[in-house]
Amino acid sequence: MKIVLVGATGTIGKAIIAKLEKEHTIITASRKGADVMLDMTSVASIQAMYAHVGKVDAVIVAAGAAYFGPLETMTPEDNQQSIDSKLKGQMNLVLLGLDHIQDGGSFTLVTGIMMDDPIKQGASAAMVNGGIRAFVKSAAIEIPRGIRINSVSPNVLQESWDKYANFFVGFNPVPAEKVAQAFVKSVLGGQTGQNYEVY
Amino acid sequence: MKIVLVGATGTIGKAIIAKLEKEHTIITASRKGADVMLDMTSVASIQAMYAHVGKVDAVIVAAGAAYFGPLETMTPEDNQQSIDSKLKGQMNLVLLGLDHIQDGGSFTLVTGIMMDDPIKQGASAAMVNGGIRAFVKSAAIEIPRGIRINSVSPNVLQESWDKYANFFVGFNPVPAEKVAQAFVKSVLGGQTGQNYEVY
Repeated sequence: MKIVLVGATGTIGKAIIAKLEKEHTIITASRKGADVMLDMTSVASIQAMYAHVGKVDAVIVAAGAAYFGPLETMTPEDNQQSIDSKLKGQMNLVLLGLDHIQDGGSFTLVTGIMMDDPIKQGASAAMVNGGIRAFVKSAAIEIPRGIRINSVSPNVLQESWDKYANFFVGFNPVPAEKVAQAFVKSVLGGQTGQNYEVY
Repeated sequence: MKIVLVGATGTIGKAIIAKLEKEHTIITASRKGADVMLDMTSVASIQAMYAHVGKVDAVIVAAGAAYFGPLETMTPEDNQQSIDSKLKGQMNLVLLGLDHIQDGGSFTLVTGIMMDDPIKQGASAAMVNGGIRAFVKSAAIEIPRGIRINSVSPNVLQESWDKYANFFVGFNPVPAEKVAQAFVKSVLGGQTGQNYEVY
């Protein structure tokens, strides 16, 4: 398979590459340090990426920024960061990617545990996660040509635990390898409209 | 209670007014035909509304537009309509309204059944609904001063069935009066972080 991986330089992205690179052609996309430069907040950048890579069998997104901060001081501009990146960025990768995916191909997006198990300062990120999950479930019933679409909802990662433990009190972090396995299930399996919870 | 009702001229809004107007002071807000003019897609309009009404005990939102159309032809601009109105409009009414709500007051937003029971052409609307539900659940754990926040998720309305029956095949429409009852539960009850499904 020819697979575009957006967010290839992150912890989850690297774990996905480790699982898929032997048997598949992976084209990495990221703001820097990847095969293709991509700013997922930009429609023009997404269009340029698809024009560059041509037809692909799968698009995986393991990227997207979301705002973290107290609800009480959150501004519309703070929240806009989440909307522009992890929400619209991922949706636009689907909307603008439909013509570039082979029949029977797949999209796999990323959500996150905070929509189900909220943490303080996480309301904007939770919104994005819940929005993407609902979009995936709904898009799956009408996406054409046998294309599938799923999302993966990771818990906080073991690899990030030192940095984020104080925000995720009482959570049980999971290894990036386990999260990557859910992306593999989405790309190589047969399901659609799913949100794989790796909790 | 002094209650701001956004979307007062809609079918659900009118049903909410019928239930609350005898015992509470309702200030209606809408694009036209209400006590206060409000364009919920505009931060400035939301700020002007709050400056006008002063401190309130509850904000109810029974409004917000979302794009309907086939996934295959949906553009980022189409999807933006949903983001600007039903998603950001509702979130901004909370973010900008916190300072205008009395201690122990409440926000009640609106989602919709399509996030749980998707229909064709509804992927953008489903995204908004799922985003608002997750935002509410997360915001509830850190919203200050005993303020509560919930959402109501209506099924298609009996009052709109003639218009929408072809889109909602096999659904069992509900009366607006039943949906309004969930808004009443949110405003006058004690729960927070809930999404009341009126399915």
